[in-house]
This record gives sequence, C-alpha cells and structure tokens, in this order.
Amino acid sequence: MPVEQSLIGSRMPRVDSEAKATGRAIFTGDISLPGMLQAKVLRSPYAHARIKSIDTQKAEALPGVRAVVSGMNTAGVKWGVFRYTRDQKLLPQERVRYVGEGVAAVAADTLEIAQEAASLIKVDYEPLPAVFNVWDAMAPDAPLLHEDHPGNINVHVAIEAGEVEEGFAGSYLVREDTFTAPEDSYFMTEPYAAVANPRQDGSLELWMPNAAPHQKAKALANALKMPLNKVIVRKSYIGGAFGGRSDVFPAEFITALLSLESDRPVRLCFTREENSLATRKGHGMYTIVKTGMDKQGRVLARDVTCYMDGGAYSSTGPIATSVPFLCHEQCYRLPAVRYNGYRVYTNKPIGGMYRVHGRAWATGVDLQLDIMAEELGLDPLELRLRNARQAGETTPTGSYVQSCRLSQCIEQSAEKAGWREKYGKLPAYHGIGLGTNSVQTGFPLGIRGGSAAIIKFNEDGGATLISGVVDNGQGNDNMLVQIAAEILGLDPRDIQLISADTEATPNDPGAYSMQATFTGGNAVLLAATDARDQIFEEAAQALEAHTRDLVAKDRSIYVAGAPDKALPLAKVIRMALLKGNNIIGRGSFASKVDHRREWLKNPQGQLSETFSFGATIAEVKVDPETGEVDILNMVLSQDCGKALNPMLVEGQFEGGAVMGGSSGMMKEEHLWTKEGLCLNPGFLDYKVALPLDVPPMENVIVESIDPTGPFGAKEAGMSVAMSAAQALAGAVSNAIGWPVMEYPLTPDRVLNALAQKKAAYGDSKGGKP
Amino acid sequence: MPVEQSLIGSRMPRVDSEAKATGRAIFTGDISLPGMLQAKVLRSPYAHARIKSIDTQKAEALPGVRAVVSGMNTAGVKWGVFRYTRDQKLLPQERVRYVGEGVAAVAADTLEIAQEAASLIKVDYEPLPAVFNVWDAMAPDAPLLHEDHPGNINVHVAIEAGEVEEGFAGSYLVREDTFTAPEDSYFMTEPYAAVANPRQDGSLELWMPNAAPHQKAKALANALKMPLNKVIVRKSYIGGAFGGRSDVFPAEFITALLSLESDRPVRLCFTREENSLATRKGHGMYTIVKTGMDKQGRVLARDVTCYMDGGAYSSTGPIATSVPFLCHEQCYRLPAVRYNGYRVYTNKPIGGMYRVHGRAWATGVDLQLDIMAEELGLDPLELRLRNARQAGETTPTGSYVQSCRLSQCIEQSAEKAGWREKYGKLPAYHGIGLGTNSVQTGFPLGIRGGSAAIIKFNEDGGATLISGVVDNGQGNDNMLVQIAAEILGLDPRDIQLISADTEATPNDPGAYSMQATFTGGNAVLLAATDARDQIFEEAAQALEAHTRDLVAKDRSIYVAGAPDKALPLAKVIRMALLKGNNIIGRGSFASKVDHRREWLKNPQGQLSETFSFGATIAEVKVDPETGEVDILNMVLSQDCGKALNPMLVEGQFEGGAVMGGSSGMMKEEHLWTKEGLCLNPGFLDYKVALPLDVPPMENVIVESIDPTGPFGAKEAGMSVAMSAAQALAGAVSNAIGWPVMEYPLTPDRVLNALAQKKAAYGDSKGGKP
Repeated sequence: MPVEQSLIGSRMPRVDSEAKATGRAIFTGDISLPGMLQAKVLRSPYAHARIKSIDTQKAEALPGVRAVVSGMNTAGVKWGVFRYTRDQKLLPQERVRYVGEGVAAVAADTLEIAQEAASLIKVDYEPLPAVFNVWDAMAPDAPLLHEDHPGNINVHVAIEAGEVEEGFAGSYLVREDTFTAPEDSYFMTEPYAAVANPRQDGSLELWMPNAAPHQKAKALANALKMPLNKVIVRKSYIGGAFGGRSDVFPAEFITALLSLESDRPVRLCFTREENSLATRKGHGMYTIVKTGMDKQGRVLARDVTCYMDGGAYSSTGPIATSVPFLCHEQCYRLPAVRYNGYRVYTNKPIGGMYRVHGRAWATGVDLQLDIMAEELGLDPLELRLRNARQAGETTPTGSYVQSCRLSQCIEQSAEKAGWREKYGKLPAYHGIGLGTNSVQTGFPLGIRGGSAAIIKFNEDGGATLISGVVDNGQGNDNMLVQIAAEILGLDPRDIQLISADTEATPNDPGAYSMQATFTGGNAVLLAATDARDQIFEEAAQALEAHTRDLVAKDRSIYVAGAPDKALPLAKVIRMALLKGNNIIGRGSFASKVDHRREWLKNPQGQLSETFSFGATIAEVKVDPETGEVDILNMVLSQDCGKALNPMLVEGQFEGGAVMGGSSGMMKEEHLWTKEGLCLNPGFLDYKVALPLDVPPMENVIVESIDPTGPFGAKEAGMSVAMSAAQALAGAVSNAIGWPVMEYPLTPDRVLNALAQKKAAYGDSKGGKP
Repeated sequence: MPVEQSLIGSRMPRVDSEAKATGRAIFTGDISLPGMLQAKVLRSPYAHARIKSIDTQKAEALPGVRAVVSGMNTAGVKWGVFRYTRDQKLLPQERVRYVGEGVAAVAADTLEIAQEAASLIKVDYEPLPAVFNVWDAMAPDAPLLHEDHPGNINVHVAIEAGEVEEGFAGSYLVREDTFTAPEDSYFMTEPYAAVANPRQDGSLELWMPNAAPHQKAKALANALKMPLNKVIVRKSYIGGAFGGRSDVFPAEFITALLSLESDRPVRLCFTREENSLATRKGHGMYTIVKTGMDKQGRVLARDVTCYMDGGAYSSTGPIATSVPFLCHEQCYRLPAVRYNGYRVYTNKPIGGMYRVHGRAWATGVDLQLDIMAEELGLDPLELRLRNARQAGETTPTGSYVQSCRLSQCIEQSAEKAGWREKYGKLPAYHGIGLGTNSVQTGFPLGIRGGSAAIIKFNEDGGATLISGVVDNGQGNDNMLVQIAAEILGLDPRDIQLISADTEATPNDPGAYSMQATFTGGNAVLLAATDARDQIFEEAAQALEAHTRDLVAKDRSIYVAGAPDKALPLAKVIRMALLKGNNIIGRGSFASKVDHRREWLKNPQGQLSETFSFGATIAEVKVDPETGEVDILNMVLSQDCGKALNPMLVEGQFEGGAVMGGSSGMMKEEHLWTKEGLCLNPGFLDYKVALPLDVPPMENVIVESIDPTGPFGAKEAGMSVAMSAAQALAGAVSNAIGWPVMEYPLTPDRVLNALAQKKAAYGDSKGGKP
C-alpha cells in the first residue's frame, strides 16, 4: 500500500489554463452553428419614455432579415428573481426606463444586415421626466418608475435586533459618519453574448456566460413558457461573473425568441459598451453609520442606513441591499443593531449583486472603527480583535457560526504585514490599514434542492463526473474533479467532467453566493462516496475483507494494513459489470438554512450553513501634491475552512484583492450625463486595474476545517475581496491623517480630503503627517 | 383517480418522424463545425498486394492540406471484435487484401483539395495472387490472406449435439440438398460518414452512424490508446444499421487520427460506392443441409455444412457464422444436430453481421422441410407445427426457452393467409410458401455490464432520461421514453431523452443483436422504478398512505382506491427538493447468459435470455415466360413478447419483410469482376426494393408476455425479416412445382429452375403446374 498522500490541499494546476492561455477556449461569442443568424438589439435613447408604437415593417422587409421581435409580439412576461420583485418586462411594451434598455431586436444573415434592420425600426416615444439619483427619486413629487412603488423605493430592508437605543445610551463613545460611492462596473473580461439553437425535438439549446445554468434555464423556461427540460443551457468557457451573471437577462430571452421565431440558431454578441449598459452594475450608495462603544472599544450598538441607487429594475439588487448588512453582522459581535436599507429606483442601468458588496457600506463600518479606535487611543487591530466574531456564537439575525478563525486571520496578517511595528510609526503620507469581513458559504438563493451529482464508471476504471456546477473563472471544474478523485483514489486525469450543461447534469443552484464548493462540492463528495461504497462492496468479496477496512488509493482498492491485498479499480469495475452492475454514484446536498419567504426584507434564522472570514492589511504611500496613492503591499488572509487547492485559493485571494481593492477602491466609477447616459461604458474611459496596477501581495491561508464543508472547505476569496477595500481606505486615511469617506480613492478625492483636513485644522497638522 | 389507461400497447407516433420527413434531421454528413476539414481516403486498386512504400510528401506539400495519415505513421493497431479475431490493421502497413481497402487519407480545407492530395499519394504496390471465392481460397495451393489461418479458414464453427448418425439411421426419410446465395448489401439509406472533433480537455468527440456508441467508443479508445472517457461518441440521426454498423471501421479511426493530427474537426463522407466497398456486406454462402425425419415428419437429425465467403477480414463475420445455426436450433426441435460452419477469407470486401442472417442457410432448411413434407404427403404447415419449438424446452446447445408462441404464429398467419384453403389448390404458377424463424433477444455480444439508465427530475415535474441505447432507425428513442413514462405516470412529452451519447449516458451494449428493448428497456424500467420509489416515499408522508398503495398516473400520485387523495408529481418533486432530495433514479440490467469465451466457435449454455419466434406466409404468381415473380401478399406474424407500441412493431415487421423478403430474396446480389472489383456498388446497378416493389402485407402480432422482458416485450421484426425469405422461396417453388435452391430469385434463376424441372420430367409435368 502506497504512502498516504492526499489530493486535498495539493497545488493542482487548473484544467482550463492551457485552453485559455492559448486562445483555444471557446467562449459563447466564438460559437458558430450551421445556418446561424446574427442578432442586434435596438436600445432606448431615452432615460424614461412612453412607447407609443413600434413599427418593424421596414426592418422585416429588408432582405436577409429572418426575425424581428419587440414588446409588441411578446406576451409581456415580467421577470424578477423573487415573486415580489418581478418588475421588468423582458421586452418593454409601454415604457422604457433607462438609456440603453433593449426595445426590439433583429436576427439576420449577417451582423451588418441586423444593424441596418435595427436602425429601420421606428419607435415612437413620448419622453417622460426622469430621476438620476436617490434623492431626486425619493422626492415627494418625483416621477415614479413603477407605480406600485411609492417614493421609488424598490425595497426597504429593515432589521433590528437587540436594544439599539439603550446601547447608544450606555455607550462611552458614539459616532456617526456618512460614506458615499458611485456606481461601479463588473467589467468582466468577456462581454456578454448569447447563442440559441432550436432543436428538432422541440428543445432549445442556449449558451451564455452565466453563473447558474440551472437558474437561467428555469427563468427562461418560465419566460418562454416551455417545460424546464426543454430549455437547455449548455456549457461554455466564461470570462467572469462576479455576481453580474446570476439572473436572467432580456438579451438571452430575446436571443431565444429570435431563434424560435426564425427556427434558426441565433447569436447575439454585446459590444463592450452594451455589456456595461445592458447587463448589471454595482450600486451607487450613500451610507450613514452610527456606532456606540464602551471605553474598551467593544461595540454596544450600531445603526446603519443605506440608500442604494438601484437603477430601473430589481434584478438581484434587493439581495445586494441585505448582503452588506449580513456580512457585517457575521463579522462583528453586535449586541444591538439596526439597519435600514433602501434600494431606490432611478432611470439608470440596473444594479445587481456584486462580488464586492458595498464599498461605502463595509468600508464605512471599518473606517469608523479606525477613527473611534484612535479616539479611544486604541490600536485598530486590538479593537478588531475585541469585536471579532468567534466560533459558536450566533449573529443578531440568528445564524449560528459553526466555524470561525477571524481572530487568527487578523493576527496572522498583522504579523506578516508587520502591523505592530508599523502602525503609528510610519512617516508622513505613509499609512497602514486593516479591513475585515465575513461572507456566507452555501447561501441558497432562489432555488430549491441544492446541488446533485452523478458519477459513472467505464470498464477501464475511468469515470465521468456529472455536476451542474459551473466554472465561471474561479476553477470550479478543478474543485469538482479533485473532490471526486480524492474520494475514489483516482488521478484527477482519470475523471472526465460534465459540468454546467442543464440537460445532462442534475440540479444545482449556481456558482454564485459562495455555493459552488460548499454545495456543489458536497454533492460530488456524496456521489463519489456512494460510488465508492458500491466499489468497496464488490471488492470486499474478492479481497475477503470488510468494506470498512478498504481504502481507495492510486487507482486501486487496498485492504488497510495489508498492503499486498489489493485490486486495481478497473478490475473491480469489470467484476461488477460481469454481474450486470454498472457503478453509478449519486449525491444530493442542500444547505441547512431557514427558507423564509421574507428573509430578503427581514432575515431571520440560519442564513447560511457556514461563513468565511477574512482580514486584509494594506500599506500605502500618498503623494500630497498629486493625490496619487502607491500601494506598497497587501497581506491577504482568510479562514477558508480548508484550502482544497492552495493555488486556486491564492488565485481567489489575489483576484479578490485586485477587484475589491486596487481596482474597485482606487479607480472605478461610472459617470453619467444629466440625461442618464453613461459617459464611460468602455475600457478607454472606465478604469480597471491592469497587471501593472496590481500591488505586491502576500497570502495567509487560515484553515478552520468546517464541520460540514467538503473536507472542511468554505468559500475562498470573497472575504478577502470584501476586506481589501477597507484596508486601502484605512491605509490612505492613516497616511494622510484624515478619514476619506468618499470612494473610490481617486487623486481628486484624496486631495479633497487633504483640503478638508486643512480646513479643519488650519496649519496645525491634526493627525499623523 | 382517472380511468386506468396504459401507454404500453398504445400506438405512439415516432418522435423522429417529423424531423426525418421534413429533412431537418441532422445526420453525420450534415454536421458542420467551425474550422472543420474535409477528408478523403485513398483506396487500394488491387485485390491483394504488398505495400512496398507510401510516399505522402507531395500530398503534404499541397496548400490547404492539414494532415495525411497512412499505415506508415500509425502504430499498426490491429482490430477485431474478439481477442482471437483481431486480424485487421485499421490502416494497413504491409499488405492490402481487397479492392477498395483504405490505404491512406488526407484532411484538407476543402474536399477538392483532399481529393487532389489523395491522388498525389504514391503507393508502390507489388501485386499478389488473389482468391475470390471459397473454393479457390480453400484450395491447397491458395495464397493465404492471413498466414496464421491455413486454408484461409477464418473461423470454423463446429457444433454437435445428440446422436446425429443414429438419428439419420433411424429416419424414415433422409434428404440432402445444397443451397447457394451470393453476397448482398445492407444498402443503408445513409451512406457512412464520420466527424471527429478534438476538444480542449483532451477528449475527442465523434459522430458516425452506428449501432453501438459505447462499443464504438471502447474500440476506438483501444485503437487510439486513449482512456475510454476521453473518446466520446455523440448522438446523431442514423439512416439504418442492420448489423452493418456494429464494430469499428477503419474510417472512424482514420477520421480520429486526422483530427488529432491536424488538431481540427474533420469530416469524412463516403460516397454510395465507398459505402458498399468499405463498410460491410452480407456473406455469400454455400449451404448443404441434410435432414432425417420419421414418417410423421418429425425431424430426428440434421447436419448442416456452410461455407461463407467472409472477405478479407473478420469484423463481425465470425458471429454471422454461428447465428444462422443458433436461430435454426431455437426454432425447431432437434434431437440430434451437427453444424460445421466455415468462414473463409477471400480478397473481397468484409462480410459482417447482417439483419437477415443466411439466405442460403435458413431458406435451405425451410425449403427442404417443404420438399420432405411433400415427399411424406404432409402439409408443410402441419410439418412445421410438429417440429415447432415450445416454451419450456431447451435448445440442443443448452438454451432454456422461457416463452414461445411459435405454433400460434404459424396457425394465426395460416388462418389470415388462407393457407389451408390455398395450399395444393392454387392454379398453375401460383404458389404459397411458409417460413419460420427464431431470434435471440438480449444477446450480449462483446460488452460487459448490459445497459444502465439514469432519470432525473426538474421541479416542474418534467424528467430527463439518460440511456446509452441508440436509435438507428427502429424507434428506440420512443421505446425508452414510453417505458419510463408508463412507470412514472407521465406523458411521453414530459420526458426529455439523452440517448446514445457516450459522455452523458452510462454503459449500453448497443442497438444490435436484438438488445435495445430487452436490455436497454429493462434498464430504463429499473431506473424509472427506482425514481418512482423515491417519489412514492416522499408522497406517502404527505398523503398519509403506504407507498404500496400509491399509483403514478397522469402526472400525479394517487392513493389506490381513494381517488380524492392525490398530489401532482411536480409538487412531490418540489417537496423533496425543499428537503434537499434531488430525485435521481438509476437502473442497471444485463441478460442472464453464459459468458463463455468460446461460445463463438462452440456455443454452450444459455445463449440469450429469451427468444422471439416468427412465421411468414407469402403468396406469389410466377410468369413462366419471363421468370418474373409477382408477390401477391405476405402475412407477417411474430411472437414479440408484448407489443409495447404496435405501430413500431408493425413497422419493424414490414421493414423486415421488405428487407429479408421482397428485396433480399428477390433482387439483391453483388457481382464482381475477376479482379475482385465490385461491379455494382451503386444504386443504379445494385437493386433494392423501392416503394413500388413492396407487396401487400398483413401483420399478426402474437404476444407471449415474456417473464423478463420489459412489460413482457422481446425483440420485434427480426423473426419476420428472417422468415420472409423462406416464405418467398417456398411460394415460388410451390408455384413452379420445383424447388429453387439458388438465390436471390431473379428471373434468370427462376427460368433456370423451370429448365431443370423440364430436364428432370421432360414433358410429363412433374410437380404442380
């Protein structure tokens, strides 16, 4: 019997690296089918207007045009993630609500014909007054985007736990601050595209970059009024999701309609600009944080109010209204807390769930802790440790935290970053900052039944693993294969993976909300274990051993403690086949959570089965003349339960820090004309971090071995992504000696903060510099 | 609770009819992939030659050529269905053995370039002496095709059961006759094509018309030295198989090699002529039948010797050497029997398993019974009944026959055809004939493990059925869905089917050797029952009933006897999902047979789990001037166990009768030049029955409700196909009063028989006319 060696925890290279690096990976926009048509969407030039008529006759008459669709020839299906957030007609019929909303679409033999045909569609609009920020939208006389939502309040999340006012009253120190940030963009590498192919058996094949094939299929089946097993979302390579590809988009509905109408395959590819306007954006937000603490820095009460600019429709935005609060209440002990989150409709593109929930929210809470620590004369690190969540505790809204090594994350990243040597001792305009956060793991949003997996064997001992989990860039395909290979004693190369495809794979919630490893991984673990049980049963007879003594390793079945007693796995499979037993393992896993209908507006009970925790420390230098920030170093640490594949975990940490920190916190913001037109939908004007912008980073993996995660694993990377922004805001504030409360930390905002400081202190220097 | 109504036995229209009738069905030759290359095979002009060298340089240098393969750059993999029949290098290296054998192949940007490049390949041949018939091949000084097979005997099947010589000695009447037939063709509607696509994950996708995707994948994985789970045979529409698409062909190996070499998708489409030369053909055969019977017409002993012209390689031909004997020993009681079957190598295209096994074999046995009945003064019908197999008996080689209604088939078809009113009473040149046969059902050739199936459910109550069974024209897709729908109380439209695809589907032996309904259908039955058990478990709690009292019907679960207590199936699925249970049913089924290595050469024990039985009666008029035969009517009857879908069963009966009878018996024969070139590889010169050639036919379905067939079903159509030829030979012989022992019954052969009769009897009329 060979030396015990586990795949779990090994640095297994990604299966998709080569295809992606060599350009061979086929993304949706690369798909070409015989007879495929090209599609183009006609978009609204108005932020708010009544549609009086849509005349598609000229477009239809253009040679080469095969189908034209608009709200005029659909049933007016309304879409929303939850029953009570269905506010968007996938093709508008009466009204458009933002510049760029799709109004009609054409499928034609070539893209040029489709473009020309789209320009021939005549839409008669009656412009309506519009609102472009939450204050205008909530004004008493504001035009309403949706008549059934007075004050343009899309959703109001109101949470209260404990005696908040008593908490403030008993506090030694109470402070209220306001933090703001404009909209940001997901800016996935791959612009959105969709391909639809109507098949002879009455089913419809679809490809699109997405985070949840089974959810997409379900939503589209509802919208198209087709049985779910006839709407087949296929696998393709996906260039990022980040929360922005979770719900159904009008574009995939439109592509499906065009293909059904023309009875031909249809491809729709968004331009980069369309990807910014017509998919989703991060919410602009205005957050007021009031915190009371005792003299030792322990938080006694907190009250947060947040106004989020949601754009024209709900999408997954209502979830994004709760999530920053939930992350925050998981991360810190809070005897009493109140939250009012308002997501407000405006005549702008739609805000959705975003990987880095709440720049002005999470950063506000953390930066305020820094300020109050200073006011109390405490090290912010020490203050974090005093408030840090511990395993075995329950959150204010009732989630039991079964594993948590947040304090270790803080301590270990502080040690690596040299926090105690540096904090308060750095020269002028040189600062250090700390962010912490927590994220749900196995958060079953909007789908029943969790994830299921199937594994089947061939007579040569190879297996095929069938899982609905999608890999949209984070390496889920590796994760699935690694778990199955570990259980079965196979080499990962022995396992062929069918993932994502909704025809072949069983139910799965999707690779968003930190579910893939926990939910999908556990389903694979159960399926592989089920198969192994059958294999052991077969081998036990031949090896004259008890199944409990058998070990699967190195493509063989061994008897523990009797290294000479072994059978190749392939031989066991063939023995079973000769008896007519085809080994097929199956597994089904769903998080143990409270499925309460109203959890969105007022969450209660177990939100998620477990939670990850992270702490990021950043060190920066600020140029006081230009306001430019130079990120010297970032230390990224997270309790990810168990690092199944440290290489992927580190990739997630670093990607998260770049997205949430050096890109999101330092650069990104969407700008708008006063007519609601996005000024910077493209790469030239909207700034994201490029490789040269990525700062030096160090990773600290903290393992807590979660009792229900697969091999102890929880999500990896989100808690880093969500703490990186805070660390940078804290570091810049620490560097200049004045808290910066408007994000992102572009030079103008840094200079503005320096000016505020000067206005407050005059020539007396005030804080650190 | 609704009225009890079963899908089983209902006339369910075929799911593929519309696609096929409208031309929308995508066959392999229709597949187009981005960047796909076109392939062309260079074929040997010699029937037998040594390959001295192959120079591909000029072809490789032609612009647009992406890959060239020949035996020079393959490892010389030898292929054969069984370990001891591996005699064919998929690309020859030293020798070619028939005109048309593929020697090299090219993949290029266009077919024109591929053709030109193929013509630029220079093969230096040294011609060798060749043999074109079994007598020349078995001659002592004949050139050997395979040095390890003296006398060019590919396989010698030698079976002996009972005391044969004693049987003859004790017989009242003994007769020996010789029957001959040349090669015939499958002539599938769809010419062979193959598409190969190398994927980024190291797997290879393949499409080709085939009868057994999992067998193809296994064979190609062996030949290409790839893991089985990386060789993925996909589903496509298939235009017929008839036994001729069961084993691996050089062409799919070549297409795979070209695609791996070029790293591009490659398509190879055969011309109609290539389809005749380079796939498979039916064996030419020479059969000597000696039968002894008592005065009452009971057969006491039989000795059959058959020489089969096998062509250059084994393929599935060795199986075809046994099968006619096995069918015959199942059909008739035989106290003592001997069989010597010789499959002989010749320098002609390869003979394979053919749906209508043995024109000169089965027809010989049946026609001899007619002759002997006449000699005994018995009605041939009566003689058949006296010798007909009965349920509960065991065949000479040891197969127990668990269900058999052969006598009823004979009686019922005789009644419908008016046999007793007509036999011996028809006017001159007007005749009636009877054929009977039996076929194995669930005959597990060359693959382990039988068939497995998986069924999974969606929350809307729809299901997806996953089965490796392929539909190559007979309607298997319907059969699979029908069985699952019946068990689950669903409408067939509620079930999406994934079949054939070897990546997504579990193991299956293939749709040949009468396995699909029995083996694949039983696997589906078990998988659906497994799912139903889970559904009943879930519903029982909610309905407060025992699972044993539940009934699945009309998309609902009912409590038997309490029609008001019911739950929609979709609701039960959702209840299960809320608990994290994804309903996934699985089933695995393999025939209970003796897996003996040498069964091919000397079968023993249970050959097949059950057997079908058929009887066909034909009525003809012969024009004595021209020899033309006019088929007036055919009555087709078979014990198919249970007719799951009578419409499909009738289709199989009629298709079988056309193929085996009006086409195969009356028209078809391949002709050859003395250099071994096939003279009639195309539709113009090789005659198959056209719609106008199809005679009036009547179907008699006899059900025996087999104890292990799914819902009692056995194979449908083969026993008709295999008895139709005998019925026609009997009818023509009866019409002219002289047995015709050379087939097919073309006018020249009929006139020849009339001339023989005249030579024998002179002007005295002899027999009937």
